[in-house]
Amino acid sequence: MKIAIAQLNPTIGYLKNNAQSILESAHKSVENGARLLLTPELSLCGYPPRDLLLNPGFIEAVSQQLEKLARQLPPHLAVLVGTIEKNTDAAANGQKALYNSVAWLESGQIQKIFHKRLLPTYDVFDEDRYFEPGNQSNILTLETSKKGGLASERVKIGVTICEDLWNDEAFWGKRIYEINPVQDLVQNSVDLVVNLSASPYSVGKQKVREAMLKHSATAYQTPIIYINQVGGNDDLIFDGNSFAVDGTGKIINRAKAFDTNLSIVEYDLQQQDLQGFSIAPIFETEEEEIWSALVLGVRDYAQKCGFARVVLGLSGGIDSALVAAIAAEAMGRENVLGVLMPSPYSSDHSVSDAVKLVENLGINSYKLAIGDAMNAYDKILEPLFAETEFGVAEENLQSRIRGNLLMAIANKFGYLLLSTGNKSEMAVGYCTLYGDMNGGLAVISDVPKTRVSALCRWLNRHRETIPANIIEKPPSAELKPDQIDQDSLPPYEILDDILERMIHLHESSAQIIAAGYNPQVVEKVMKLVVRAEFKRRQAPPGLKITDRAFGTGWRMPIACRV
Amino acid sequence: MKIAIAQLNPTIGYLKNNAQSILESAHKSVENGARLLLTPELSLCGYPPRDLLLNPGFIEAVSQQLEKLARQLPPHLAVLVGTIEKNTDAAANGQKALYNSVAWLESGQIQKIFHKRLLPTYDVFDEDRYFEPGNQSNILTLETSKKGGLASERVKIGVTICEDLWNDEAFWGKRIYEINPVQDLVQNSVDLVVNLSASPYSVGKQKVREAMLKHSATAYQTPIIYINQVGGNDDLIFDGNSFAVDGTGKIINRAKAFDTNLSIVEYDLQQQDLQGFSIAPIFETEEEEIWSALVLGVRDYAQKCGFARVVLGLSGGIDSALVAAIAAEAMGRENVLGVLMPSPYSSDHSVSDAVKLVENLGINSYKLAIGDAMNAYDKILEPLFAETEFGVAEENLQSRIRGNLLMAIANKFGYLLLSTGNKSEMAVGYCTLYGDMNGGLAVISDVPKTRVSALCRWLNRHRETIPANIIEKPPSAELKPDQIDQDSLPPYEILDDILERMIHLHESSAQIIAAGYNPQVVEKVMKLVVRAEFKRRQAPPGLKITDRAFGTGWRMPIACRV
Repeated sequence: MKIAIAQLNPTIGYLKNNAQSILESAHKSVENGARLLLTPELSLCGYPPRDLLLNPGFIEAVSQQLEKLARQLPPHLAVLVGTIEKNTDAAANGQKALYNSVAWLESGQIQKIFHKRLLPTYDVFDEDRYFEPGNQSNILTLETSKKGGLASERVKIGVTICEDLWNDEAFWGKRIYEINPVQDLVQNSVDLVVNLSASPYSVGKQKVREAMLKHSATAYQTPIIYINQVGGNDDLIFDGNSFAVDGTGKIINRAKAFDTNLSIVEYDLQQQDLQGFSIAPIFETEEEEIWSALVLGVRDYAQKCGFARVVLGLSGGIDSALVAAIAAEAMGRENVLGVLMPSPYSSDHSVSDAVKLVENLGINSYKLAIGDAMNAYDKILEPLFAETEFGVAEENLQSRIRGNLLMAIANKFGYLLLSTGNKSEMAVGYCTLYGDMNGGLAVISDVPKTRVSALCRWLNRHRETIPANIIEKPPSAELKPDQIDQDSLPPYEILDDILERMIHLHESSAQIIAAGYNPQVVEKVMKLVVRAEFKRRQAPPGLKITDRAFGTGWRMPIACRV
Repeated sequence: MKIAIAQLNPTIGYLKNNAQSILESAHKSVENGARLLLTPELSLCGYPPRDLLLNPGFIEAVSQQLEKLARQLPPHLAVLVGTIEKNTDAAANGQKALYNSVAWLESGQIQKIFHKRLLPTYDVFDEDRYFEPGNQSNILTLETSKKGGLASERVKIGVTICEDLWNDEAFWGKRIYEINPVQDLVQNSVDLVVNLSASPYSVGKQKVREAMLKHSATAYQTPIIYINQVGGNDDLIFDGNSFAVDGTGKIINRAKAFDTNLSIVEYDLQQQDLQGFSIAPIFETEEEEIWSALVLGVRDYAQKCGFARVVLGLSGGIDSALVAAIAAEAMGRENVLGVLMPSPYSSDHSVSDAVKLVENLGINSYKLAIGDAMNAYDKILEPLFAETEFGVAEENLQSRIRGNLLMAIANKFGYLLLSTGNKSEMAVGYCTLYGDMNGGLAVISDVPKTRVSALCRWLNRHRETIPANIIEKPPSAELKPDQIDQDSLPPYEILDDILERMIHLHESSAQIIAAGYNPQVVEKVMKLVVRAEFKRRQAPPGLKITDRAFGTGWRMPIACRV
């Protein structure tokens, strides 16, 4: 029995278009002789639909689109579609109003609806906000031969939705939910488990997924097919990377990462196991993986928001250089405008390095000197600022003049402005709100400075894309004469490790100091991170590449004292 | 038996200070002869602590502070303190790591811990993200006479935490959780129910609370004491308004709204009912209520973030006028700086009206003409913009120049910048990102334009505080000659009703059109609201006064098509 795996890239809420993608996959599946087509979690509305789920009109539209799709699909193909289902018992039982569901469509109709049983409510996930967990074993029994006159065989398929697969106590050493739906299905003697997912990317996550599924398949002697959404939806990047393991835990199929895909696998009724025909390679380096993620994140955000072109400021520094390179790959170099905005404090190399970068990338560029605008502000503010020293106010003004110029260009020509701050800066607030933080999308705000350098070096592995001087020179905001970042921050190697401990490992300052760091440095960093919360709250969505990004999964109070 | 009710205003995470407030309340309670002191939900760490809860060091600090407080408290007073408790069975049982709890402190020790049973996970609430629900009846049995040699009597008190009280099927006509903890306690024959809350303010909510508690007290013939947190924590304003109802449903005590308070009530052992001594009046108008809420929201945000002074732009329009009046009340007029920033497109009255406002309020002001900065940008951008028409880019630049000047002043003198946009503008995106949206706090971003007018009229009920011309003239952004808002938006009465239906009532455009609105207008407004999501994502925290504010409880995708 052939099973098709459609790794789709839905646009949130764009039901008609998403249904069309499923329909096209269905036709290709039939051409390939498939009996069953799998699509990702919530493939009809895209994941995550967030508060669109609170609008009854939206739920109704999903329901109508699902019924229409059932009628349009080829009749002899079973299709699993991710959808939203109303919980009609909600008010009587004191439950949530909706289910996160999978509909089995076949013969023009909805045959059965399965509900997700484990609802992630942590990090970026808010599923308890909307959904009631299902409490049934989700079993789909398929007859393998519908058309012919031959006696048909039955395949019993266990249906799981994303998180349902992620509660294996033996693998994790703990449980995060009471039940384990996979165990439950295996106890119900399923031949095969399928998992419809929308699992966001983070560095190295695919290795965890593969190790976990190998473990489960082996432990339960049951093959598993994992099908993931692909594409960027605001801050979240879904990597695809759909794959299947046979009952011995061997990977027999893997779809390409960061791209749409249709794979076919075969469930062998004699062997009672899965066979695959194509295994896409995994990335050789984390840098290549992150690069691919960010390129997709930029491309999809721009495309799904309706932008054909992007603009960004080029400071001659490493952050904007990396973002320019990502943008050129994502949008096409002819659709990228880099703007150089030197001030009287800018070094010569900041302009010459940026010019070299523009040449290397082949993007468009423009140079706008900001000195006259600085003078205008100085003159306007002179009566108020007369008795004061040059300080943060004046430094920020330069950054904000640049931010204004970039927004003026974005508004005038309909470009998407990309902001270029890295995670280290966002953490300690070494960035200007309404200045260099301006943009519709923060491309590298989840990439620490040390990783920015590593990505640039990786990018240069064959030929110099990022001019060497940009990588080698000491980072500087150039907002006053001879300023460098390390005047006010610890070296980035130290800063990034402290931040990793604080943000990802949830270590206290006492623990970080115990790891050997200077107490004053640790306390200073801790204080800076807490104080910069008001800036992060107003930051654009930032592409998430780690398991703890600033953004929808980072929910800190501003007015607090810790 | 006397019971003290401490309506406290904690700062999130400031454990030492919050404990000190509880301690001071305890001493006053003893002076007043109280046997029991009630404090709000999570009174030790403040509500909501949000992702601070993910840091084990924070949980440990809460635990240590609680034990220290137990030792410091007067020995013969029972004190209920809101705190965080570790769930030691979490990993083994597949549960969340923490409980939202109440500790009964007495005789220098933690006597017992009660866990919250119903965990709100909707709107601004994310309790399922952190907490495991309790599954026990929370009963505290107090002996009424500890000191004397007399035989003591026992009072059986049912302890509930905020949401535990909000699932009365008979009152609401539906359940939102399976169990009803109050019913459960009454079945366990408690004499009295207490509810430790952190219930955020919204217009008219106190009426709902009082109706609900009257209903429950009457239905169960059991007195109820409701004790609420007071104070502003970022976007949330807690109104206090703690009150008590006796077993016949009569209100026998009410604390003042929007202020800290210590009340005493008496549980009469003979009558087996509550008696009170003081009932603060409720507000006569919604305008007075909203005004008081916003004043507290501004004051607390400034104070808890460490700002003594605020700055805002005064356009001569009604929004900034209202915010200036609120700021003067919250901070003291001498601590408010209004900045007038006329452009060549500003009308004469925009300056004269603002000057009049400044005089009426007695705040500080400064005038900065922005024409020279506009010219500087025009000159810088001329080569790029030469062939284009004056449009949104140029309009936004004016707003952004003003935003920069205000931030320069805020940075230079350490002022908090208040932004002045209203909810109608925030909804349809009639505001400039990085321009008039700039600020640390958006004071009226949950107040629709029609309500802004009503508030100004209310404010002028005795004498003219807001100059009449500011209220009467047609709203205008004055970013091009002779511009008024109604050139591009429907009249605010119509807009606000459409928005109310869309945002609060979750109506679809079909439903709103069916209510009698012009389909083109409805579709236009719907489209504007969806498109403006990218601006709202980058807005400062905005004080919440309705049951659906843009902010932490509004979670919409940006890249979507609906």
